[in-house]
Amino acid sequence: METRVLVTGFEPFGGETVNPALEAVKKLEGRVFEDADGSIRIVAAAIPTVFGKSIHALEKAIESEKPDVVICVGQAGGRYHITPERVAINADDARIPDNAGNQPVDSPVVDGGPVAYWTQLPIKAMVKAIQEAGIPASVSNSAGTYVCNHIFYGLMHLLETKYPEVRGGFIHIPFLPEQVVNREAPCMSLDQIVHGLEISVQVAARQQTDIRMAAGKES
Amino acid sequence: METRVLVTGFEPFGGETVNPALEAVKKLEGRVFEDADGSIRIVAAAIPTVFGKSIHALEKAIESEKPDVVICVGQAGGRYHITPERVAINADDARIPDNAGNQPVDSPVVDGGPVAYWTQLPIKAMVKAIQEAGIPASVSNSAGTYVCNHIFYGLMHLLETKYPEVRGGFIHIPFLPEQVVNREAPCMSLDQIVHGLEISVQVAARQQTDIRMAAGKES
Amino acid sequence: METRVLVTGFEPFGGETVNPALEAVKKLEGRVFEDADGSIRIVAAAIPTVFGKSIHALEKAIESEKPDVVICVGQAGGRYHITPERVAINADDARIPDNAGNQPVDSPVVDGGPVAYWTQLPIKAMVKAIQEAGIPASVSNSAGTYVCNHIFYGLMHLLETKYPEVRGGFIHIPFLPEQVVNREAPCMSLDQIVHGLEISVQVAARQQTDIRMAAGKES
Amino acid sequence: METRVLVTGFEPFGGETVNPALEAVKKLEGRVFEDADGSIRIVAAAIPTVFGKSIHALEKAIESEKPDVVICVGQAGGRYHITPERVAINADDARIPDNAGNQPVDSPVVDGGPVAYWTQLPIKAMVKAIQEAGIPASVSNSAGTYVCNHIFYGLMHLLETKYPEVRGGFIHIPFLPEQVVNREAPCMSLDQIVHGLEISVQVAARQQTDIRMAAGKES
Repeated sequence: METRVLVTGFEPFGGETVNPALEAVKKLEGRVFEDADGSIRIVAAAIPTVFGKSIHALEKAIESEKPDVVICVGQAGGRYHITPERVAINADDARIPDNAGNQPVDSPVVDGGPVAYWTQLPIKAMVKAIQEAGIPASVSNSAGTYVCNHIFYGLMHLLETKYPEVRGGFIHIPFLPEQVVNREAPCMSLDQIVHGLEISVQVAARQQTDIRMAAGKES
Repeated sequence: METRVLVTGFEPFGGETVNPALEAVKKLEGRVFEDADGSIRIVAAAIPTVFGKSIHALEKAIESEKPDVVICVGQAGGRYHITPERVAINADDARIPDNAGNQPVDSPVVDGGPVAYWTQLPIKAMVKAIQEAGIPASVSNSAGTYVCNHIFYGLMHLLETKYPEVRGGFIHIPFLPEQVVNREAPCMSLDQIVHGLEISVQVAARQQTDIRMAAGKES
Repeated sequence: METRVLVTGFEPFGGETVNPALEAVKKLEGRVFEDADGSIRIVAAAIPTVFGKSIHALEKAIESEKPDVVICVGQAGGRYHITPERVAINADDARIPDNAGNQPVDSPVVDGGPVAYWTQLPIKAMVKAIQEAGIPASVSNSAGTYVCNHIFYGLMHLLETKYPEVRGGFIHIPFLPEQVVNREAPCMSLDQIVHGLEISVQVAARQQTDIRMAAGKES
Repeated sequence: METRVLVTGFEPFGGETVNPALEAVKKLEGRVFEDADGSIRIVAAAIPTVFGKSIHALEKAIESEKPDVVICVGQAGGRYHITPERVAINADDARIPDNAGNQPVDSPVVDGGPVAYWTQLPIKAMVKAIQEAGIPASVSNSAGTYVCNHIFYGLMHLLETKYPEVRGGFIHIPFLPEQVVNREAPCMSLDQIVHGLEISVQVAARQQTDIRMAAGKES
């Protein structure tokens, strides 16, 4: 039996010429993992970094790819780790315009939606497995208020209201080294990002419930 | 007419011998601001840094002080700014034990409560006013998963379910200089913290609705 | 008997509208400390943030003020502490132009001068005393390669070659809070900077030899 | 004609179980680059992280390997870039004991030696070439005051006084990812470190004089 995992990546934004999420997702496209429970196949989609349009592109990909699990991936400039996100909030608040020039301030992602949705992914099992492969990882408690949180909330709302048999969530990843050759900002090699996401996909595909592991923050 | 603002601060935790929130709150106790709309009086309470017990102490203070507005204040080691919080989430996930030795992992703050509550404070107006006084400030999208987020969620749940006429929210503040004399961590002078909180109290007491100002983050 | 300490501060540079060094030095001007050994008087001078010209201005101030001790002070954006400098190097390498548009690259400060000069100030005793006052401080091993290091090297060369009876050195200080109200960068209140410099002046005036205290860095 | 480049790496210290410098140097051992000017051969040596002993081990390696160029490499925890060092200073000041328990405070590396030595490597050409390969790099103005600066100063003093026909210098490198899987600290993949050092070796072997490129710091 095949488990299908849809992995999405955003187009570059904010003045960057690459997006590590898109680069990683291109490399993951078509990857198949065989294990005792059958096979896991990755299907990939590129998503425009645009409020609204990104959620429509995501829904179209869900419709055409019929995944069992959806993992949206986005760049988190300034982060040191691969960070599976815990919670999506119903707020768009854009510090900079998106790729279509929209800059919503304190608008809901979904009118009348709940304040927040939990991820449905086993984020602590994912973090533990990524760390065991020697790759820096931790749980994040905020996906921000830009297009990343927007699609994360949009995804969870879609799964809740239209695709209850699909599970999903969001992972933020650091800059690539080539994005920071002459500034002091954390980065991660594309190899490690791709490997960390491969691990995430396999854990997410196979573990429906999370492990018990303290991974919180004081603030 | 007098507007009463209850400001709470936590006891020291995590190996620290002072808590800037408690130090600031002591200085704010009894402060009265007179303006065209009448007066604003600050009443203060110290709160134990303990899961559960902290919310009970808060409720007791609300019962006895009958405030119009409640602002809980906590230390955010590692932050550069005074950061009013946008959202409280229904999760306790303690990296370190609290002052009574409890270390909950992925428990709800309130069984059956919603995933999250928005603050009811005009956080952007507060940030703008604090910055205009020359004090570093920004909006935060995560209060963490420790006792700070715990009391923030507990407060919002109390206001929602028992005290609908009271408004409230949470503010994180940096370390004091004396906590970081020989380590490289951001800090803020007690004078600036106290002044930033005085401004916050006045804005919160007088503005029921927030201003429109982009203050989001990409991640 | 009066000990005279010349304290200098730079004019704003690099797009900033204030320079914490200049603000602090203005407040220190004319300050007198009385102690068992007599009195210590601070005389102050503003120095242009310009290669070459800064050293001439410094020499003029030394000639007119006849100090016993000279402490040059400069802004170190990005630093958390008051940092007395250990060593000045004979290199100008400007990432950005100075206030007169000069941008030397790998030129010596003084043709034929030694590679480096040690400070003559008791920097560890100064750090210890500043920390004991609750103010973050540490020893720095590099004053950079811009106008701060330039005047530091120029000062030490002047003292070595023309004013052997005068002692001197350099202290870097953080941004003021008002310079970073909406960016994540470390800062220190003007009160604490001024107090840290007052302590430095007194220690430098009274202690000819430094204390033994580990204050190094691995890198 | 063969140019021989001795590359040295330190043993783990400060509680770490690996040292990225040693790991990288092991991979570089025996590497040969052929180019229009002949060949460049890397010979490698492991150096104990011990004051004094490290310089003796280095001299022994120089005696036995007869290199044309010497590049010592060390770990700089907390740095984001591969950082060729500009200057070595004549001071040992150890915050933590070395691997033999020594903790010198403000002792000279070499009694009666000059305050500092410049590197003899074309550090700006190296930084430019490393960046062009997509790897974060910058010039550093301080190698600290621990065993890294110690061997750097010791090396330059040896070359100055005993081996004038050999050129040399020092490069600091970041933590490996596996050293920071669950803490927020910058790191670089071993592949990138090794590749950055390969580039450094080739530039150092072929360019006797440096390029003109601003690469300084304000502080």
